[in-house]
Amino acid sequence: MSSTAKTNGKVHIAALDASLLTIELAETLKPIPTPGTYTFGDIKTDYMLVMTFDPLTGWSAPEIKPYAPLALDPASNCFQYCTNVFEGMKAFLDPAGKPRMFRPEQNMARLVTSAARMALPMFDPDALLVCINKLVSLESRWIPALPDHALYIRPTMIGTKPSIKVGASDHATLYVIVTPVGPYFQSSSGGVSLLAVGEHVRSWPGGTGGFKLGLNYSPGFVPQRIASDLGYDQVLWLLGEEKQITEAGAMNFFAVIEREDGGVNVVTPPLDGTILPGITRDSALVLLRAHAADPSKQLLALPASKPVYIEERVLTVPELAAASAAGTLLECFGTGTAVLVVAIERIGDVADPALKTITDIVMSAGNGLGPVGQALWDKLLALKEGRDDFHGWSVLCN
Amino acid sequence: MSSTAKTNGKVHIAALDASLLTIELAETLKPIPTPGTYTFGDIKTDYMLVMTFDPLTGWSAPEIKPYAPLALDPASNCFQYCTNVFEGMKAFLDPAGKPRMFRPEQNMARLVTSAARMALPMFDPDALLVCINKLVSLESRWIPALPDHALYIRPTMIGTKPSIKVGASDHATLYVIVTPVGPYFQSSSGGVSLLAVGEHVRSWPGGTGGFKLGLNYSPGFVPQRIASDLGYDQVLWLLGEEKQITEAGAMNFFAVIEREDGGVNVVTPPLDGTILPGITRDSALVLLRAHAADPSKQLLALPASKPVYIEERVLTVPELAAASAAGTLLECFGTGTAVLVVAIERIGDVADPALKTITDIVMSAGNGLGPVGQALWDKLLALKEGRDDFHGWSVLCN
Repeated sequence: MSSTAKTNGKVHIAALDASLLTIELAETLKPIPTPGTYTFGDIKTDYMLVMTFDPLTGWSAPEIKPYAPLALDPASNCFQYCTNVFEGMKAFLDPAGKPRMFRPEQNMARLVTSAARMALPMFDPDALLVCINKLVSLESRWIPALPDHALYIRPTMIGTKPSIKVGASDHATLYVIVTPVGPYFQSSSGGVSLLAVGEHVRSWPGGTGGFKLGLNYSPGFVPQRIASDLGYDQVLWLLGEEKQITEAGAMNFFAVIEREDGGVNVVTPPLDGTILPGITRDSALVLLRAHAADPSKQLLALPASKPVYIEERVLTVPELAAASAAGTLLECFGTGTAVLVVAIERIGDVADPALKTITDIVMSAGNGLGPVGQALWDKLLALKEGRDDFHGWSVLCN
Repeated sequence: MSSTAKTNGKVHIAALDASLLTIELAETLKPIPTPGTYTFGDIKTDYMLVMTFDPLTGWSAPEIKPYAPLALDPASNCFQYCTNVFEGMKAFLDPAGKPRMFRPEQNMARLVTSAARMALPMFDPDALLVCINKLVSLESRWIPALPDHALYIRPTMIGTKPSIKVGASDHATLYVIVTPVGPYFQSSSGGVSLLAVGEHVRSWPGGTGGFKLGLNYSPGFVPQRIASDLGYDQVLWLLGEEKQITEAGAMNFFAVIEREDGGVNVVTPPLDGTILPGITRDSALVLLRAHAADPSKQLLALPASKPVYIEERVLTVPELAAASAAGTLLECFGTGTAVLVVAIERIGDVADPALKTITDIVMSAGNGLGPVGQALWDKLLALKEGRDDFHGWSVLCN
């Protein structure tokens, strides 16, 4: 019995079935733009993958077809009540010129969790991944053959119940679009600055911050403008009077703090429901722990003389400020699919609600990625580009 | 200079201009269904009002045209990041058979506030209201000529920037749809039951609960299912370990508690940013305060022997439970545009996270609306239906 049938308690509606996938070819293909001439999200490729769920009939046959607008009833649940979830994935070209995705089953699993949190219809994540593979293969000419360039993949699921009655959407559209991307941040130094914001709170215990929902992002747009106006690239989201750190912009946050015994603590906030369970975050932690278990094997390019200790625990701005003052805050970095690993060069610590007094917390390792961030960047990019392997994380698109 | 021009720091883009409104008539009109044969949100009428904002040209000329799907780029901000806001209004037929709206300028002001919180383009609320008036007039044949029936009006604004880049939408579509409605809840007793939920939190300090955003609603769909499965109609949203009451379902919450001096306290949570500033809530408070200032004038049909004291303050579930046990919890009710005033008959107080132990808090005044709720219902409906007047709150559509 399919997951769709089980989840909805009905046995006669169609499950998502990748074997029914149809492909409608475009009459003409678009020209491929020169990498470096566009920014993240600008480019629309030739195709999209679309499937729809109807409560009476179940999942439609998936279709790959020319990129086109969606036509939706203005009363649709997605417009009115924001039952919208998404994923971020990337396909890289490996040394043989073949497209590869990185731990894609993790994205599929998270999309299922997100859909469930929005009370959206369920689907078979393996079937969706088969269809995404097909889309990436068909669109592989869009993957730039340059380092740190990729085809960004955006699975999106929206509630399409055509009624303004407040309640779960029993209709949905699941679609996937792709776009070629280069490095996410255009900063000359390669790092970003963060303004630590406490007045606006991204997430809360019992809230939805632990799920990848569209609705977690737009409340950040006004604080993002405030940060930009004050000369910071992104917001560092805080929680509570202790200024507990949750996320950095749309990235997970890591700090590297020197220990008295000569080692370093790599600290990141725990998955307590207020932060996104990032797949890059998880990959970084797995790699760091595997490295720490036997530093002599040099899984990560870090000196064995500086052992690494990994801590998933609450981290506060005052703790970072104290470490910075003591010269033990070696580096901070953010992780995410879009950025991979990005250096955090300074954190503006706001002392007053009027944003008049801001003290910058700086890193002892200087600007750009420090040793830990750089080692993770190198390893993760090598894995993503299929130049290296770790537990089969990099998967060929067939 | 228009508000659009000022807000965007540009002077050459077009402001929203009601004088440019065009009307495209439908070739045939739909049959009007019999009231009572449909539930809230089921019916699509003949027309919709639509206008769009482009960052280069400003607001388009508003159009009233046949109800039809919206065609949007799949990368649109509204799907990806939920930059969607809405309003709920109603048009009633007055004794002369003319459509009237209730304090519509309040809805327009709140829509502006909501759009600003989502970093959406600004618009002239007076111009929008002129266009809504035209739509309601054109659609007035859809207003059921029955008590407590109305044409529900749903202004909606969505971000339409066609890019997955995380950030504010500089494109938008503002549209208004309408639908004929009868009483919101179909309960035989006329009241609703609430499950007090603390595990899921609707809103928090620094969050967006004080704005009318689409994204405040969908996180409630899973808790709503939990409440329904346990036999409760709606969720009572709590905040913190003190079980502070914020909202009831999608309504504002009021409790009426007997005082030792023979009067009653009408208590509702304050507008601290975690609850919606409801227009029915505000209207109820204004009427209650005007009544309390001179009970002998009988603005509300309440006995002068039971003076009313209005308190906007923090209210907790333990306080309600204690009052219920002492026999002083006379009545609780919810307010909102969709429900007007609805009796809350019992509140399930959850003692354990597994939802095994739930104790019902009941009202001393029994089921159905108590004296205060009923007096507000009577007065507000009379005002909305234009059978009575108070400070010109009921406005004729021209």
